[in-house]
Amino acid sequence: MTDDRLNALEDRLARLEDERAITRLIGCYGPLVDAADADAVAALWAEDGTYDVEGWGMRSRADVHAMVLSPQHQGLVTAGCTHFLGPVVVTVEGDTAVAVCESVLVVHHKERFHVARAGANRFELVRNDGVWEILHRTTRALDGDAAARDLLAVVR
Amino acid sequence: MTDDRLNALEDRLARLEDERAITRLIGCYGPLVDAADADAVAALWAEDGTYDVEGWGMRSRADVHAMVLSPQHQGLVTAGCTHFLGPVVVTVEGDTAVAVCESVLVVHHKERFHVARAGANRFELVRNDGVWEILHRTTRALDGDAAARDLLAVVR
Amino acid sequence: MTDDRLNALEDRLARLEDERAITRLIGCYGPLVDAADADAVAALWAEDGTYDVEGWGMRSRADVHAMVLSPQHQGLVTAGCTHFLGPVVVTVEGDTAVAVCESVLVVHHKERFHVARAGANRFELVRNDGVWEILHRTTRALDGDAAARDLLAVVR
Repeated sequence: MTDDRLNALEDRLARLEDERAITRLIGCYGPLVDAADADAVAALWAEDGTYDVEGWGMRSRADVHAMVLSPQHQGLVTAGCTHFLGPVVVTVEGDTAVAVCESVLVVHHKERFHVARAGANRFELVRNDGVWEILHRTTRALDGDAAARDLLAVVR
Repeated sequence: MTDDRLNALEDRLARLEDERAITRLIGCYGPLVDAADADAVAALWAEDGTYDVEGWGMRSRADVHAMVLSPQHQGLVTAGCTHFLGPVVVTVEGDTAVAVCESVLVVHHKERFHVARAGANRFELVRNDGVWEILHRTTRALDGDAAARDLLAVVR
Repeated sequence: MTDDRLNALEDRLARLEDERAITRLIGCYGPLVDAADADAVAALWAEDGTYDVEGWGMRSRADVHAMVLSPQHQGLVTAGCTHFLGPVVVTVEGDTAVAVCESVLVVHHKERFHVARAGANRFELVRNDGVWEILHRTTRALDGDAAARDLLAVVR
């Protein structure tokens, strides 16, 4: 009886902990990418993780690392920017998970800030050796394209 | 003694689970409404739930469903938009809850993105058959109107 | 054996509760400051807490209170604004914690909304008599300044 209750508590708590770990992982993306910390951003992805964003197909952790150090990204960061993520809806299933959120890229240009892009984001995550990592991330601009809207389906 | 500790753990965990369920429910709103998934958006509300937003008074789940399919909303979505919600402050009291957050509507227009509205949001929620649903949502533009600010009081 | 499991559960749950309390505390900032509730905003800080934001150095809870009532802040609020915070990355260590997030200030001006500032935020928090409070908050505009980026390092 006590064992049953302990087992149930452990399972329920583990579920909250998994969601917390994934929410935190994705929550780190904005601050780290805007700090241009290439090592830390890359470490959010699995070794063979992918990031597919508007005409840029990264196929590994090393590719993500290179993106952060790229002239395009360095240009954004030195001018001033925030990759601002919205609330993440996480669905865990054993050692894999899906997370969905919207995002806004705000950039600083000529003494002003403006919204450069709004995006839809879908993450597939995997637990490797007890640590959650991003296996696939797909981001599309919310510019009316139906493919962006398709990313926003969440599991209820 | 063991029973007391188990009871306490179960109560504390249930509180976190309730807050998690409500945070997730509200977190689903943006992705689902921007995906124009009328069924899924409507399902966030109670059957007799209401949504009162700037000159639009919805009085039921069916009204919310109709809003998503309306020409106004479809126009936003096909042009590109994000209903972007901020951090939600949730206060649960038994089978009812209040949640408060701010929001920003970003729209795509003529190849650019801009902020069309900032809003204050107050949700009253109820647990029906174990599932949290929105009973009342009130949204007002943060355009200097004192009524919008009044929505932002949170329970500490 | 049962005691070990209970102890472990209590520790794990306490960690989630601490993170929840801090996330909620910081999540209250936007709604409360935009409601211009000076008492409630000030109560988020420790008595001797500080808030260092772009040329404004507050050195106490009373200073934070005065900021909310200042003509500058009242001007923002009566025109319409949202101090919009992004996902908070919290790291708790006993009775102290660090939290990092990005933020966007959206203001209403001449019938339009626009982004007035994007910011990097670092909070140091302390638990006083069981209640988490802000001990130090530093905010810098993400306008290309390297000091702003330095605030965004998160503990992984």
